[in-house]
Amino acid sequence: MLPGDIENFIGVAQVPIGLAGPLHVLGEHAQGDFYVPLATSEGTLVASYNRGMRLLTECGGVKATVVEDHMQRAPVFIFSDAGEAREFGRWVEENPDAIRRESESTTRSGKLLDIGQYQVDPLRYLRFNYSTGDAAGQNMTGKATAAACEWIRSVYPKDLTYHLSGWIDTDNKHSHLNMLLTRGKRVVAEAVIRKELLLEIMGVDTRDLFRFRQVQIAGAFLAASANNGAHAANGLAALFIATGQDVANISESHAAISYGQLRENGDYYWAITLPSLIVATYGGGTGLPTQRQCLEMLDCYGAGKVNKLAEICAAAVLAGEISLGCAVLHGDWVSAHEQPGRNRP
Amino acid sequence: MLPGDIENFIGVAQVPIGLAGPLHVLGEHAQGDFYVPLATSEGTLVASYNRGMRLLTECGGVKATVVEDHMQRAPVFIFSDAGEAREFGRWVEENPDAIRRESESTTRSGKLLDIGQYQVDPLRYLRFNYSTGDAAGQNMTGKATAAACEWIRSVYPKDLTYHLSGWIDTDNKHSHLNMLLTRGKRVVAEAVIRKELLLEIMGVDTRDLFRFRQVQIAGAFLAASANNGAHAANGLAALFIATGQDVANISESHAAISYGQLRENGDYYWAITLPSLIVATYGGGTGLPTQRQCLEMLDCYGAGKVNKLAEICAAAVLAGEISLGCAVLHGDWVSAHEQPGRNRP
Amino acid sequence: MLPGDIENFIGVAQVPIGLAGPLHVLGEHAQGDFYVPLATSEGTLVASYNRGMRLLTECGGVKATVVEDHMQRAPVFIFSDAGEAREFGRWVEENPDAIRRESESTTRSGKLLDIGQYQVDPLRYLRFNYSTGDAAGQNMTGKATAAACEWIRSVYPKDLTYHLSGWIDTDNKHSHLNMLLTRGKRVVAEAVIRKELLLEIMGVDTRDLFRFRQVQIAGAFLAASANNGAHAANGLAALFIATGQDVANISESHAAISYGQLRENGDYYWAITLPSLIVATYGGGTGLPTQRQCLEMLDCYGAGKVNKLAEICAAAVLAGEISLGCAVLHGDWVSAHEQPGRNRP
Amino acid sequence: MLPGDIENFIGVAQVPIGLAGPLHVLGEHAQGDFYVPLATSEGTLVASYNRGMRLLTECGGVKATVVEDHMQRAPVFIFSDAGEAREFGRWVEENPDAIRRESESTTRSGKLLDIGQYQVDPLRYLRFNYSTGDAAGQNMTGKATAAACEWIRSVYPKDLTYHLSGWIDTDNKHSHLNMLLTRGKRVVAEAVIRKELLLEIMGVDTRDLFRFRQVQIAGAFLAASANNGAHAANGLAALFIATGQDVANISESHAAISYGQLRENGDYYWAITLPSLIVATYGGGTGLPTQRQCLEMLDCYGAGKVNKLAEICAAAVLAGEISLGCAVLHGDWVSAHEQPGRNRP
Repeated sequence: MLPGDIENFIGVAQVPIGLAGPLHVLGEHAQGDFYVPLATSEGTLVASYNRGMRLLTECGGVKATVVEDHMQRAPVFIFSDAGEAREFGRWVEENPDAIRRESESTTRSGKLLDIGQYQVDPLRYLRFNYSTGDAAGQNMTGKATAAACEWIRSVYPKDLTYHLSGWIDTDNKHSHLNMLLTRGKRVVAEAVIRKELLLEIMGVDTRDLFRFRQVQIAGAFLAASANNGAHAANGLAALFIATGQDVANISESHAAISYGQLRENGDYYWAITLPSLIVATYGGGTGLPTQRQCLEMLDCYGAGKVNKLAEICAAAVLAGEISLGCAVLHGDWVSAHEQPGRNRP
Repeated sequence: MLPGDIENFIGVAQVPIGLAGPLHVLGEHAQGDFYVPLATSEGTLVASYNRGMRLLTECGGVKATVVEDHMQRAPVFIFSDAGEAREFGRWVEENPDAIRRESESTTRSGKLLDIGQYQVDPLRYLRFNYSTGDAAGQNMTGKATAAACEWIRSVYPKDLTYHLSGWIDTDNKHSHLNMLLTRGKRVVAEAVIRKELLLEIMGVDTRDLFRFRQVQIAGAFLAASANNGAHAANGLAALFIATGQDVANISESHAAISYGQLRENGDYYWAITLPSLIVATYGGGTGLPTQRQCLEMLDCYGAGKVNKLAEICAAAVLAGEISLGCAVLHGDWVSAHEQPGRNRP
Repeated sequence: MLPGDIENFIGVAQVPIGLAGPLHVLGEHAQGDFYVPLATSEGTLVASYNRGMRLLTECGGVKATVVEDHMQRAPVFIFSDAGEAREFGRWVEENPDAIRRESESTTRSGKLLDIGQYQVDPLRYLRFNYSTGDAAGQNMTGKATAAACEWIRSVYPKDLTYHLSGWIDTDNKHSHLNMLLTRGKRVVAEAVIRKELLLEIMGVDTRDLFRFRQVQIAGAFLAASANNGAHAANGLAALFIATGQDVANISESHAAISYGQLRENGDYYWAITLPSLIVATYGGGTGLPTQRQCLEMLDCYGAGKVNKLAEICAAAVLAGEISLGCAVLHGDWVSAHEQPGRNRP
Repeated sequence: MLPGDIENFIGVAQVPIGLAGPLHVLGEHAQGDFYVPLATSEGTLVASYNRGMRLLTECGGVKATVVEDHMQRAPVFIFSDAGEAREFGRWVEENPDAIRRESESTTRSGKLLDIGQYQVDPLRYLRFNYSTGDAAGQNMTGKATAAACEWIRSVYPKDLTYHLSGWIDTDNKHSHLNMLLTRGKRVVAEAVIRKELLLEIMGVDTRDLFRFRQVQIAGAFLAASANNGAHAANGLAALFIATGQDVANISESHAAISYGQLRENGDYYWAITLPSLIVATYGGGTGLPTQRQCLEMLDCYGAGKVNKLAEICAAAVLAGEISLGCAVLHGDWVSAHEQPGRNRP
């Protein structure tokens, strides 16, 4: 920790880390058994993820796949009427190369992938989507987009008014836009839960668990929840603190869409998509001492590791989903929280 | 940190803490100037909140008010048809005292306030709302509701099938239900931004900021964001880590609804509601050493302090909202991130 | 049609009506076989609902149940700060009888059931929930709530500013609030689809249909749809035009939450909830000549019939859900639209 | 009306039509004064829109602009894992010309614009976006997409399972996806309300109306409404019935996003976007006798007229928004409903 990294430094918060695992991951980048560091003060969290990981590992492991990847900054351009806004949008469509050149001039690792456009009234929102290497990329994309916007303003034939964010990025908050269009990594974890193993380890029948899924999904839809699964935020927050991620991004990262099918033989295919998982293996808090150690324990520190970390995150989330779902169904959810001996006001 | 509080303990994550403030709060519980500990690895976060706090303090401070307060557990009862589900709902309505007695028998500080009912198809979701004293209360409400449900099952004239959660609580995830019906504290922060002070400190005119609000609100609505303000999650995550809160609850706590009016004299009334802020001054991680110190620095450790902490959280959030809004408007948002010298992939 | 019922009357729109049915309904109010009038210009709509009704009728009919029923008007009271708004809310809670007396003084059939309260910043939204007999009740509740608000203003010890609607009613638009808290009738339709009959009539296996449900639900969640079923709006719009309902209320009424379970024997339990179905059998357009005839054909005209009509609506919606789901699955969806010979640009 | 256009034809529903206007529209396609036919049984609807139109016309008229235009069909492809789904998506991206050729082979007027891709777990949703000329296009896009999918299945190197809709189209239901990505026409109506004229015609000050906007927007966000304006569904439903549109599409079409700014001189710029307005001037019910007459009255029947109709729809909606907003603010909302003498249960 060097002076200057945080303003008005007064000390450090110490959060206990427990290890869960091994978790067998069958990713494109993460392959093998992982012990996952979870920094938390919640009793039973590590134990709960641990038993989910045991189940998944015994079932053969978790497939994990990053299916989309981009970070964004979304300026808004304000016009005197809707027609001018539309005209501007066409101009942007016709000048992709120049805009890319300007934005990429500010960064070594960021690449401008495309620019989404969304119009509301006389407002034209652009959503600059970048690949950002091993960084989360919020600052990189801000700087690159600012350069692009300034250049646009300098060459566009009419006067332009814009702000670098028009609140659709959406940064540090959950949004349905991000669930649909991805912010950070869109990563899927999948496993086939074997009927006998679920009964043995969790005391739960796959058919009952699948019946319960129908109820959970109805509840999530009724509640307009950001996650029709269980509690992705729990494991992710603990992983984020341990590995130096920006914990505020739990707001975006905890969104999830689950999907399952019960097979004829009673095995249960279960998948979960994290559509806006924001992680980094470089920059930000990843270089702080204990955080770096945790990343290194996962072999996820530094260049070329970010998709590996994303895969591990998703696999760990799936373990937590199954563990909590079974605890609720089996009725040992409350008693499990009693044993660690805390939380007794 | 005692053995047994976390499973498979391997050490601690260390997160740097910076102090922002003083922030003058005019709450019912928090009154006076506060220095707010923020544990973060994000550069500029402390500086950004700091200047927002300076502005608000010079403007006379932030009013903060807890307007609603309850934590919940929401079991689902499953019936063979919708008519039986409705009939069960009526029975629950007719037996409030007995249900309260059973649930409260499990806790010293929890009080059952009321039970919301929501039916979907043959599913009857109950939402048990409790006051939980100075604890966040997720475990307390789980235990109390489990006791109530078991009692209901034992006396209800027909067979009952239920699960202790039907995914509408909604725990560890943002939901619109929570935004509407409150989870934890519903707390409002309000301030009147004086025109001259905003210009002096932020270099921004209140009229421009208010014009920008109209754009932001359109963007937030378009994006279906959990917050039509800026970045509540940022300050809250840092405060949560510093003070031993359950960081996974950022998923619920970061939701926000802002409201503003520009006054005839150019002053700007600005308010923000956090509809599901989950905080504690007792239990969970609040008793860990550094976390407890941070709570004590705010005079927020232990019994009778939770509403004070909630007020400080909301006031700090408002400071961050204004600071970021001005940075985007003024154009120094990107350059501010350059100075602390990190995040340079 | 008498002069004066519509301003600047120039004639009538004529919409063709087809009959679908018989549909066997096992409601509390609607019992027996119904032929359902559908006014539409969409080819195949009547045929599609018809085959769904045939299936459901052969399967033994549709259970239909109104599980909640209230119409609302939701004024907003505006205060100088959040504390005053909260104080006002408590006053309202403490004066239910007087408020009820004032509001009910304006109507013969409306009854004030309860007043929900929702605070955002210094705004206190009240949601007056009424039973409104056989009328839809938007005007009745407006008038009753206006009287209540004026009385409140006259007796409340401080000055009050309010508007009769603060945009949370939410009138003439879908909202998640209405999905959760009911607007109009919350009505459930349920049926058990017998495996052999589905195969015979639709050429579809219940297991395949249930597998497809998992996909549909994922899609609806991804899209943040107002209906995780298929196309409730289709049948409802046709029924609304035929029977003189306020067609603008399709915006509220088309929301739906479906739920299903596949039974061990391969039969498929399927239910759908319409959480904000707005219908009337008295007032508005129900008294126009052709509309009244259609209502009379269902024995749904006039006093004491509104729940019967609501049950028929929900049962008809369920028929359409199953028919479309099977058409998509079976692959005859497109070819079905070819046969009636229209829509060929 | 020819036999065969509707199944089991039994007669026609007659809905009274009133005329509102003149409404001065400054569109790209609709230019001049229009009398708008509204088929409704709701008392005061025509009068309310009429006074809004008078105001807007006296203020110089309504700018109307179609800013985006496409209809879609959204099949879902189901894979054994997420990696295969992603691989398929890349294949689709690499074969745009062949896919376009196949889909367009089925239609004279439809053009495939692009294909959006959205992955959830092992499901790959494609969203085929077409321009559809003067038809609404739901059937055309269904047929074209079916042809494309069958061709893809025939040439893709692996076995493929798909359904022609995966419930993200989203057809006959509101969805946030449609609000963001457009379904049908995305059309904006804009006007500058002159301070003196609003006071004269509505008895309302623009400053008060703009203050009220802040409250309305907070309410709409709290309610998670499909429209942060007032009641677009009201005028649209009446226009749809009068002009032979598919009334079920009110579910999609009633969504709206409004935006406003108060100018220094007290004039009020007000805009509303209808992001998923579905209208046609050809096909479906547009050819029925009275419906065709209404379209002809607007000079909107037949080829090349659909954007003109869309502009008129949006302009009419804006008139209704302002009229209702002023009625609520001025306090004559309830009394206005009393005068036409209906709705008196």
